[in-house]
Amino acid sequence: MPAPLFNPLVANLSAPPIPLVQAWTDAYSGAQGPLIDLSQAVPGYPPHRDMLKWLGETASSAAYAGYGPIEGEAVLREAYAEHVAGLYGAPVAADNVHITAGCNQAFIAAIMAVAGAGDTVLMTNPFYFNHQSTLAMLGIKSRTVECSAAKSFVPEVQAIAGALTGDIRALALVTPNNPTGAIYPPQMLEAVYDLCRANGTWLILDETYRDFLPSGSEAPHGLLRLPGWHDTLIQLYSFSKSFCIPGHRLGAIVGGPKVVENVAKVMDNLQICAPRAPQAAVARAIAPLASWREANRAEIAGRANALHDVMRRLPEWRLEAIGAYFAFIRHPFDGVSSVEVAERLAKKAGVLALPGAFFGEGQDRSLRFAFANADAATIRLLEGRLGRLSSSA
Amino acid sequence: MPAPLFNPLVANLSAPPIPLVQAWTDAYSGAQGPLIDLSQAVPGYPPHRDMLKWLGETASSAAYAGYGPIEGEAVLREAYAEHVAGLYGAPVAADNVHITAGCNQAFIAAIMAVAGAGDTVLMTNPFYFNHQSTLAMLGIKSRTVECSAAKSFVPEVQAIAGALTGDIRALALVTPNNPTGAIYPPQMLEAVYDLCRANGTWLILDETYRDFLPSGSEAPHGLLRLPGWHDTLIQLYSFSKSFCIPGHRLGAIVGGPKVVENVAKVMDNLQICAPRAPQAAVARAIAPLASWREANRAEIAGRANALHDVMRRLPEWRLEAIGAYFAFIRHPFDGVSSVEVAERLAKKAGVLALPGAFFGEGQDRSLRFAFANADAATIRLLEGRLGRLSSSA
Ligand SMILES: Cc1ncc(COP(=O)(O)O)c(C=O)c1O
Ligand SMILES: Cc1ncc(COP(=O)(O)O)c(C=O)c1O
Repeated sequence: MPAPLFNPLVANLSAPPIPLVQAWTDAYSGAQGPLIDLSQAVPGYPPHRDMLKWLGETASSAAYAGYGPIEGEAVLREAYAEHVAGLYGAPVAADNVHITAGCNQAFIAAIMAVAGAGDTVLMTNPFYFNHQSTLAMLGIKSRTVECSAAKSFVPEVQAIAGALTGDIRALALVTPNNPTGAIYPPQMLEAVYDLCRANGTWLILDETYRDFLPSGSEAPHGLLRLPGWHDTLIQLYSFSKSFCIPGHRLGAIVGGPKVVENVAKVMDNLQICAPRAPQAAVARAIAPLASWREANRAEIAGRANALHDVMRRLPEWRLEAIGAYFAFIRHPFDGVSSVEVAERLAKKAGVLALPGAFFGEGQDRSLRFAFANADAATIRLLEGRLGRLSSSA
Repeated sequence: MPAPLFNPLVANLSAPPIPLVQAWTDAYSGAQGPLIDLSQAVPGYPPHRDMLKWLGETASSAAYAGYGPIEGEAVLREAYAEHVAGLYGAPVAADNVHITAGCNQAFIAAIMAVAGAGDTVLMTNPFYFNHQSTLAMLGIKSRTVECSAAKSFVPEVQAIAGALTGDIRALALVTPNNPTGAIYPPQMLEAVYDLCRANGTWLILDETYRDFLPSGSEAPHGLLRLPGWHDTLIQLYSFSKSFCIPGHRLGAIVGGPKVVENVAKVMDNLQICAPRAPQAAVARAIAPLASWREANRAEIAGRANALHDVMRRLPEWRLEAIGAYFAFIRHPFDGVSSVEVAERLAKKAGVLALPGAFFGEGQDRSLRFAFANADAATIRLLEGRLGRLSSSA
């Protein structure tokens, strides 16, 4: 009897990273106080009371029990289009919006719409690991543009120009960045957009963390105002972080009508439509919870300040980059892998961070801290915990 | 400027079929009475009151707002495993269960775990269209085994034996069948299981409609009791139909631990985890709503009887197969395509059914009626509507 086969592209993927590191915490004795979990990006505060109320109302309504439109509920497509149009000062309408079950799904749906097995997609190094594993699982080849601490992990336009060969179907960028926190400047993004356009390459921009940009007064970039963006730009967003509802699984794609049309074909196969009740609830929440999101932005800016303070007093650890949600920190242990350091940090210091190695080759000297998960008082505890670990080594 | 490319495997897919036929109804004048929608499979009754209450309770709880385990909520994996173990009299435990956002997602996650672009999967003709479009979109080749009205659309074991060449990674079957309604006998399934096992081929069994089998007293098959099923069988299920909650997007995969492990890697990329609140609600509903599901089964059996009666009085239309949820009906119009007939039926008679052509080559003489959507009184109206259409042609 021949053994049944798995798809080697899937079998060869490493196990999902978050559960892997979470398992380490079982071995933490609690000696240094409660665990500080800075692994997965989840704001440490609960969703707004009204958000929960609306989620409950829509979920208990028979109106959302049936199948819904593949592209998303009309009310959410409209409310989100209006929000994006306002934020970017750009012409974005409901038919530019495709709702997905989270931003990982937005990415895989967008990528499948534009590339298949054997095609090539360009990313950065470091990258968001699910982007890499999604491409690998689909048999899509990937190449990377190096980002360096010296340039605050913003990729250089020249490097992108050099890497954009004729076979690159899409360039996937994340800003504000996961894992480094880097915020890509509007001018840089516009230069990259022009390069992509000239090369017939889709620019896929994952803006999961844009609501945590230090200042909310300006548009994150002007790409949606450029002529022809329908044929170049695909913008991804997650409702998970801004509304604190990752368990409800909602994200969005903004693109031209042809992008939406092709994504809909993919989505029909992926899961027909995103869950409906949360869509209706978020449609109600976008406008009224604007000030709540604004307050969270300020809160998280305060957390970033607290981490800056802590890091100034920990000269052995180096804050290489910090942005809207994440900090990328160089650890002090020569010749020790980032996985080993993260494991020690979890088991001995009760601090859960992700190893740099999860985000690409050559990242072994760094750890990613999702600092926005913890309040400022908790972040201040890192001084003692990180300090004791490095001095005891 | 070179034009940006779409993935031809996606661009070449036809538009999703359900929205396409739904658009026809705009042109129906209402002259023959309210529209009878027998297109998408959605029970015409609402979810149970308690189901809606539990959905509301879990959705409004902060406990399910965060990210959850990729494989699914422990409570649902346990409750569903217990249910399946009871139904099949088989050793199925929580770690054999992977929860997904519906059964389309269960299919794509299972397929991706065992096959990639260039591999070959065997299906039946007619097939469930999303199985075919999912394979096409992934660049997975498909071959089909013909099913005929003469054999009640149950594929012949000999035909499967002949088609199971060494390169077939998986055989995907649907029982009770969509589109034909055919119910595959346990003995036939066991013979096919043996063939798959001998060939190192995964048997993927989509049992979305099993709760509507005419009799609920016996296990639908004995495959989960066979030694080694972990290495051969992958069973798919949908909570959409049985619990009347397609808008909440929940399905399940039952497989061996290695299947669950590989599906989890796929799911992490597809959408991290299924929506959590509905998982917790369904975990509560499985046992207490058993008698409600039983009553629905009886109700739908009554609808099948009503359709039998109607069809007996419409000799020009032929009931080729009828099962748990669907009927496959031969239309009387020589030389007219099934799309054309379905369009006429929608626009002139106010009856929405799906063209046979959507389900495979050579199916142009048939229409699929999701009869379970309509109550018996409504089904009786089909006599006049279908009758007038065929006599006016
Ligand atoms: C850059 C980036 N994209 C997408 C996601 C996925 O978010 P979602 O919960 O919407 O699937 C994350 C989550 O961590 C992320 O960091
Ligand atoms: C055979 C079959 N499998 C899967 C599905 C998808 O169901 P779900 O709503 O769980 O994605 C359907 C829905 O019509 C179906 O008929």
